[in-house]
Amino acid sequence: MTAFTAEIIGTFLLILLGGGVVANVVLEKTKSNDPGWMVITTAWGLAVFVGVVVAGPYSGAHLNPAVSIGLAVAGKFEWGLIPMYVLAQFIGAMLGATTVWLFYKDHFDITEDPEAKRAIFCTSPAIRNVKSNLFSEAIGTFVLVFVVLYFTDATLTEPETTIGLGSLGALPVAILVWVIGLALGGTTGYAINPARDLGPRIMHALLPIKGKVNDWGYSWIPIVGPIIGACLAGGLMLILSQ
Amino acid sequence: MTAFTAEIIGTFLLILLGGGVVANVVLEKTKSNDPGWMVITTAWGLAVFVGVVVAGPYSGAHLNPAVSIGLAVAGKFEWGLIPMYVLAQFIGAMLGATTVWLFYKDHFDITEDPEAKRAIFCTSPAIRNVKSNLFSEAIGTFVLVFVVLYFTDATLTEPETTIGLGSLGALPVAILVWVIGLALGGTTGYAINPARDLGPRIMHALLPIKGKVNDWGYSWIPIVGPIIGACLAGGLMLILSQ
Amino acid sequence: MTAFTAEIIGTFLLILLGGGVVANVVLEKTKSNDPGWMVITTAWGLAVFVGVVVAGPYSGAHLNPAVSIGLAVAGKFEWGLIPMYVLAQFIGAMLGATTVWLFYKDHFDITEDPEAKRAIFCTSPAIRNVKSNLFSEAIGTFVLVFVVLYFTDATLTEPETTIGLGSLGALPVAILVWVIGLALGGTTGYAINPARDLGPRIMHALLPIKGKVNDWGYSWIPIVGPIIGACLAGGLMLILSQ
Amino acid sequence: MTAFTAEIIGTFLLILLGGGVVANVVLEKTKSNDPGWMVITTAWGLAVFVGVVVAGPYSGAHLNPAVSIGLAVAGKFEWGLIPMYVLAQFIGAMLGATTVWLFYKDHFDITEDPEAKRAIFCTSPAIRNVKSNLFSEAIGTFVLVFVVLYFTDATLTEPETTIGLGSLGALPVAILVWVIGLALGGTTGYAINPARDLGPRIMHALLPIKGKVNDWGYSWIPIVGPIIGACLAGGLMLILSQ
Repeated sequence: MTAFTAEIIGTFLLILLGGGVVANVVLEKTKSNDPGWMVITTAWGLAVFVGVVVAGPYSGAHLNPAVSIGLAVAGKFEWGLIPMYVLAQFIGAMLGATTVWLFYKDHFDITEDPEAKRAIFCTSPAIRNVKSNLFSEAIGTFVLVFVVLYFTDATLTEPETTIGLGSLGALPVAILVWVIGLALGGTTGYAINPARDLGPRIMHALLPIKGKVNDWGYSWIPIVGPIIGACLAGGLMLILSQ
Repeated sequence: MTAFTAEIIGTFLLILLGGGVVANVVLEKTKSNDPGWMVITTAWGLAVFVGVVVAGPYSGAHLNPAVSIGLAVAGKFEWGLIPMYVLAQFIGAMLGATTVWLFYKDHFDITEDPEAKRAIFCTSPAIRNVKSNLFSEAIGTFVLVFVVLYFTDATLTEPETTIGLGSLGALPVAILVWVIGLALGGTTGYAINPARDLGPRIMHALLPIKGKVNDWGYSWIPIVGPIIGACLAGGLMLILSQ
Repeated sequence: MTAFTAEIIGTFLLILLGGGVVANVVLEKTKSNDPGWMVITTAWGLAVFVGVVVAGPYSGAHLNPAVSIGLAVAGKFEWGLIPMYVLAQFIGAMLGATTVWLFYKDHFDITEDPEAKRAIFCTSPAIRNVKSNLFSEAIGTFVLVFVVLYFTDATLTEPETTIGLGSLGALPVAILVWVIGLALGGTTGYAINPARDLGPRIMHALLPIKGKVNDWGYSWIPIVGPIIGACLAGGLMLILSQ
Repeated sequence: MTAFTAEIIGTFLLILLGGGVVANVVLEKTKSNDPGWMVITTAWGLAVFVGVVVAGPYSGAHLNPAVSIGLAVAGKFEWGLIPMYVLAQFIGAMLGATTVWLFYKDHFDITEDPEAKRAIFCTSPAIRNVKSNLFSEAIGTFVLVFVVLYFTDATLTEPETTIGLGSLGALPVAILVWVIGLALGGTTGYAINPARDLGPRIMHALLPIKGKVNDWGYSWIPIVGPIIGACLAGGLMLILSQ
C-alpha cells in the first residue's frame, strides 16, 4: 500500500465510522437510543484508532490536513508531500461520507430535520460567532497536534532500542481525540480536521438528499481554525525544543 | 486445547456475554436501567476481547465464519480448515445462546414482548429492506475483516523480532467491534457474523420460550451479507498488497 | 509487602471503589446523576484494575476466594495458602465497606430506602429464586475464573523470554470484570466473589446504619455459587489441558 | 523542555480538558446532552492521560502538588524541588481555566446559574460538612497517591531490563483517576489536587464572569484534604516497604 492509498483508506474508515455514529444518533428509527454525546465522542475516538491501525505503517496515518501541516511546521514532515496527503484525505473523507449516506439511506429518507441530516456530514456551531468558533477550532486542533507531536515510542534500555507496539500503538491518539470531543466539542462540534469537515460537506451538497439545507457560510471556519491551531502547535513545539 | 475446542469455547464466551448484555437491557426487572446502545456495544466489544483472549493462542480466535472466509480469501488461512472452524463456531454460538436463556430464564418468563426476547438471540433490521440490509451487513463485515487483515504485531527493531503482547493483544479487535457497533450497528444491529446470528436463531426456535415469534424470512441476510463483506475485504487486501 | 498485606490492601481498594460507585449512584444528593448500570459496571471493572495493580507483584492479586480456589483446583496455587488468602480478602473487604460508609456517611443519613443502602454493601437478586440465583453466580464466576486461567503473558521470541507489562498488565482482568457486569450482572448483581459479598454484608449488620434491613436469607448464595463456578472453571481447565 | 515548563503545560492540558468537559455538561446550549457523571469522569481520566503523555518524559508529570508531596514523603522526590513544581502546577491550572472560559465564553454569557459556572473552575461539596468533606478529599487523594506509588514498569527478564511503554504508559494513572471520579467523586467532586482547585478558583474570582458567586469558605478543604491524603499514602508506603 502506498502512502497515498493509505491516507485514502484511513480517512475513509475514520469518516465512515465517525459519520456513521452521528447518523445512528440523530436519524429516525435507528437502533441507538442513547442521549448522544458519550456515544458520539467514544465512536469518533475509536474511529481514529481504526484508521490509524490501517494507515499507520504506510503513511504515518495523518488522516487530517492539520496534522500534516503541524508536523511540517515542526520539521517532522516534508512540505512537498502535503498536497498529495491532503488530496488523499479529501478523497477518503468524501468516499466515507458517501458510504454513510448509502448505509443509512432508508433512515435519511424518513428523517425530516435538515440540521440533523447535515450534522452527519459536517459540523455547525452551537452559537454562531465567527471569532469564538475560529478560536474553538484553533484550540481543539492545537491540543490534537501538540500532543501528537509529543507522543513517544516504547523503548528498551538494554539493548537500547525502540519497540513498535503494533496496532495497540494507535490507542494514544484515539484517547486524545476522545477527550477532545468530550471536553472541547461542546461549542463547534470539533471538526479539528479540514478534510473531515469540507469533504463530507461537499458530498452533502452533491448527493440527492431530500430536504437538505446547505451551510456554506460556516464552511471556512473548520478549515482556517484547524490550520491556525496546527501552526501554533508546531511552532510552540519548535520553541520548546530549542 | 485444539483449534476446534478453542473456537467452540471462544464463540461460546462471545455469545454468552453478547447475548447476555442484550438480555440485561431488554428483559423486564433486570438490573440494567441504562438507555442501551452504549451498554450493548461496549459489552459486545469487550465480549470479543474475552473470546479472543481464550481462543487466540489455540485457533487464532476467528469466532466468526466471515473472518475465517476473509482470511482464506486473503491467503492467510487454509480453505480446507473452514468447515471445521465454522462447525465449531456454530456449536459455540448455540451453547452460548442456550446458556443466556438459562441464565435469564426468570426474566424471559415475565417479559411479554416477543421482539425483545428474539433480539437476545439474533438481529433484526430497524427498517426491513433486503438491499439496504444486505448492504449494511456487507459493509459492517467488510470493515471488521479488512481491519483485522491489517492488524500488526508489536516488534523490536534490534534484535529484529516480534513481541507477543499476551492477553492485551486482544484489545484492538475488541475496540474495532465496539466502534462498528456504535457507528454501523444502527440499521441491522450488526450481526457481521453468520454463526453469531444463525446459531442462536436456531436455538430461539428450538428452546421452549413462551410467546416467541420466529423471523426466518430475515435469517439469510446476516449470512450472505457478512460473506460478501468478508470476500470484498480479503479481495481488496490482495489487490492492495500486490 | 507480604502476600497477606497485599491481599488486604488490594481487596480494600476493590471494595472501596466498587462500593463507592454504588453509593454514588443510589444515595440521595450525590454528584452522580447517570442512570446507573454503565457507571457501576465501568467502576467495578476499573476498581479491579486498581486492586490488581497494587497487589499483583506481591500476592498475584486474587482479591477473591473464588479465584484462589479456582487456581488451586487448576493446580496453579497451593491449597495450604487458601485460608491465609481468604482471611486477608475478608479483612480487606470489611475495611473497604466501612470506609465507603464513612465516606458517604452524610448521604447515608439522608437516604430512606433500606434496599439502596444495603446494595452498597452486598448483592441481592432481581428475582428471588434459589436455583436461578445460584446458577447466575456460578456462571458469572465460571467465566471470571476460566478466563483468568487462560490469560497469557507478553513474550519476546528472540531471545525467548517473558515480558512483564507492569501496571498495564492489570487491564485484561479489569475488562473481564467490566463485561461480566454488563452482560451477566442483570440477575443477581454479580457478586462472583464471596469476600466481596459476605465481608461487607457483615459490616452492614454491624455498623450503626439508620433504618437498615438485613437479608441473611440470601447471604449463602453469593458464597456457594461462586465456589461452584470456580471449581467448574478449574476442572474444565484441567480437562482441556490434558 | 524543562521540568518547570512540562509541569505548566501538562497541568494546563489537564485543566483545559477537565474544566472543558464540565463546561460542556453544565452550560446552556452546548453539544453535550448526556446526564453527566460518566461524561465528566471519563474526560477527567483521559485528560490526565493527555497531560501525562506530554509532561511525563520531562518532569515525571506530577501535575498535582499532592502527588509531589506524596512522592517526597515516600522518598521518591526531592523536597527542594516542590516549590518549583507547585508554582508550575498553579500557573498551568490558571492558564487552563482561563482558556476554558475563553473557549466557552458565549455559553457562559447565556447561562444564569452561578453554581454551574463556578463548578467549571473549582469543586463544591454536595453536602457541606467540614469533617466529611476533608475526609472525602483525604481518602480520594490517598487512593490516588498510594496507587501511583505502586505503579510498576514493564520489564524483560532476560536480559533483565526495564521497558518504557511510551505514551501508552500514561494509561494506568488515567484509569485510576477515572475510577476515583466514578466511585469517590460523589461527595465533594474529587478535587484531589490543590492546584486543580485553587488555581482555577482564583481565576474564577479574577475573570469578568457575569453573575458569579465566589465560595472562599470552602477553598481550604481541597488543599488541606489532599495534602493529608498524600502524606498518609507516602507514610503507609514507607511502613509497608520496610
